[in-house]
Parts: sequence; structure tokens; C-alpha cells
Amino acid sequence: MASRKEISTEGENKVGRRGPRGQRGEVADRILSAARGSFATHGYAGTRLRDVAVVAGVDPSLVSYYFADKTGLLAAALEPPAGMAATAAGAAATPIRRRGRALVEALLSQWENPATSEVFRSIILTAAHEPVAMERLRVVFETSLLAAVADNLDGEERDLRAGLVASQMIGLAMARFVWRVGALARLPSEEVARYVAPTVQRYLSGRL
Amino acid sequence: MASRKEISTEGENKVGRRGPRGQRGEVADRILSAARGSFATHGYAGTRLRDVAVVAGVDPSLVSYYFADKTGLLAAALEPPAGMAATAAGAAATPIRRRGRALVEALLSQWENPATSEVFRSIILTAAHEPVAMERLRVVFETSLLAAVADNLDGEERDLRAGLVASQMIGLAMARFVWRVGALARLPSEEVARYVAPTVQRYLSGRL
Repeated sequence: MASRKEISTEGENKVGRRGPRGQRGEVADRILSAARGSFATHGYAGTRLRDVAVVAGVDPSLVSYYFADKTGLLAAALEPPAGMAATAAGAAATPIRRRGRALVEALLSQWENPATSEVFRSIILTAAHEPVAMERLRVVFETSLLAAVADNLDGEERDLRAGLVASQMIGLAMARFVWRVGALARLPSEEVARYVAPTVQRYLSGRL
Repeated sequence: MASRKEISTEGENKVGRRGPRGQRGEVADRILSAARGSFATHGYAGTRLRDVAVVAGVDPSLVSYYFADKTGLLAAALEPPAGMAATAAGAAATPIRRRGRALVEALLSQWENPATSEVFRSIILTAAHEPVAMERLRVVFETSLLAAVADNLDGEERDLRAGLVASQMIGLAMARFVWRVGALARLPSEEVARYVAPTVQRYLSGRL
């Protein structure tokens, strides 16, 4: 106990390297950012708390202090960015005949914000090879996308329409932001939204 | 030289563990399959030739014997499956007003073949964190998808339409085959093609 107190006191002297109470947010954010990069690149198995600490520039003990263990760190790294839920809910609350455009615009604006795109990119890439991350993505999909498709539909049709919407939104994010292919990566977002919104709208409420 | 000959002779006794001349195809395929799994999960940096050999059940020396080094192994692992070029060319040669359906059907049939889907999955997942794999994906995109969009279009519009087609095709593959979300993952491919083909057709030749 005495030694833990010592560490804490020492931390207050080396500003930003340790995590005294008041700086928890900033230090934890640095650790999370490093963790997202590592999970996306090396997967869960290939991520070592020690390496995450080095990239974050913090003492390794702080990683366990804030996130307990690797499972806790992964769970925190996969947490959708603050504001995403509100943006998704806003798009989902748009009248159905303009909801396709609203969803595509929400996707593009979220990805154009560097802080949130970093989180999305990490979730997508980690989900590609980590069952836990894939499961998390399914939950996000089910809570945010299923809510966005018309409530008057029955379960099976709503599930299908949500899946079709997801296929176009995921593909747009991959093509424009992850792989940056051709014109789709270079055009202003208003133009991209104009081309893609009719697809999402058809999947939401059009004839299939 | 003598020792290499010795290894080769020894190999012929342990059937399938070494790679005598006649078995090159089968042994190289096993190494490639193991390599694709490793590149997709651990990335290029995290892949060790020794581990690939263990998974493939071959002597480590055979990996370098067939593929020289890790770069050679990655290049071979990213080679599109045999038959893909022909299938893509067939879809691209379909008359423009039915080409959307042809492209979606080609995508679905290729992914439903376990041998080719393993290669696609590896290319997509590896491309998510490996610049070399991403570059390879761009080349595949440019040679097969650009060819599929109408030749009478000018460069910029063709590039945009190809990107839109790619966004829907990539997203469909991710949602149905990689993440397996909801109804989209369970429905027969004819039904999926019916829902998605109009989107691809609009991106190919419709009003944007």
C-alpha cells in the first residue's frame, strides 16, 4: 500500500507520465488511442500491455491500473465514440423518406472527425480478426441500425433491410476512408452523400 | 549441395512433409493456405515463416525453398484465385443493362466457393493493415472493376462509378461473408442478388 502511494506521488511530479486523479481522462485517452492502434494492427493475441504503454508514453503499471487487464482494455477500446449514439439516434429519428440521406450524412460526418474515425477504423479492423470485436460490432449494428429502419416492419424484413443498409454503409466507409479508392475517396462528402443516399433509402423503404 | 539432396531424399520418405518435385503443387498450396491465415490474423510483421511451416505441417526450409522469403510468400498469398479473372471478365463482358446482376452474382459465387473465399478473406483482412496488400487490392480493383464499367465513359466518371460499385460489393462481402450479419448472411444468394443488383446497376449506368 505504501509503495502504491509512493508511485502516485512520484506521478504528480512527472506531469502526464503517471495518472493522478485529475489527469485520468487525458492519460487514459492516450492509453486507449495506443491500444486501438495495436488491436487493429496486431489483433488481440498480438497486443502486449507493455508495448501499448510504450506507445502511450506511460508507465506499464498505469495500463493495468486504469483498465485492469487486456480484456478490460479491449472492451474500453471498442466503446463507440461519445456523440455517436446521439448522431445515430438523430438520423434514426429523421422522417422515413429522408432517412437514407440522414444516415449517409451521419456516417460521413462521423468518419470525417479524426477522433471518431480512429475509433471506427480500429473497431472495423479489429472486428475483422477478433470475435469479441465482431460481437461488439453486431451489438452496435443491432442497436443503432435496427432502430433506424422503420418500426412498422416485422422482425424478418427489418433485419433484412438493416443488413442491406449496413452492407452499403460498411462498404462506403471501407472504400472511402480505409482503402481510399479513386474518386470516391477524393470527392466532397455532400457529393458522395448525393450518390449513395438513394441506395440506402431504397434499402430502408423502397421496393426490394 | 549434398545436404540439400539428402533433405530431398529424406522428404520422399515422409510423404507430404517434404516437397519432392511431383508434390510441389500440393505442398506449396498448404504453405500458402497457412500463410494467408497468418497474414490476415497477425499482419505481415507478425507472421513468422517458422510458424507458417508448423501450421502447414512442413519443414521450415521448404517455405524458403518455394517462396524465397517473407515478401515472396506475401506476394504469392495475395495472388487472386485462379478463375477469378475469368469470372470477372465474363461479368464485365455482359451487356451493360444486365451487368449489375452479373457482377453481384459473380461476387457471390466466388465467395461461396471455400477455396476462393479463403483467398478473398485473407486479401481483405490483410489489406486492412498491410500497405502492400492494400496496393494489391487497388490493382485488382483497377483492372477488374474499371474494366466492368462502361468503356464509353470518360476517366473521371468511370473512376467514380467503379468506386461506387466497389463500395457496394466490398460492403456486401463484409456483411454477408466476413461479419455474417443477420438475414443478409442467411438468405440464398439468388435472393441477395435480386436485392443488391439494382444498386450496382444504378452505379454502373443509372442517373447518379
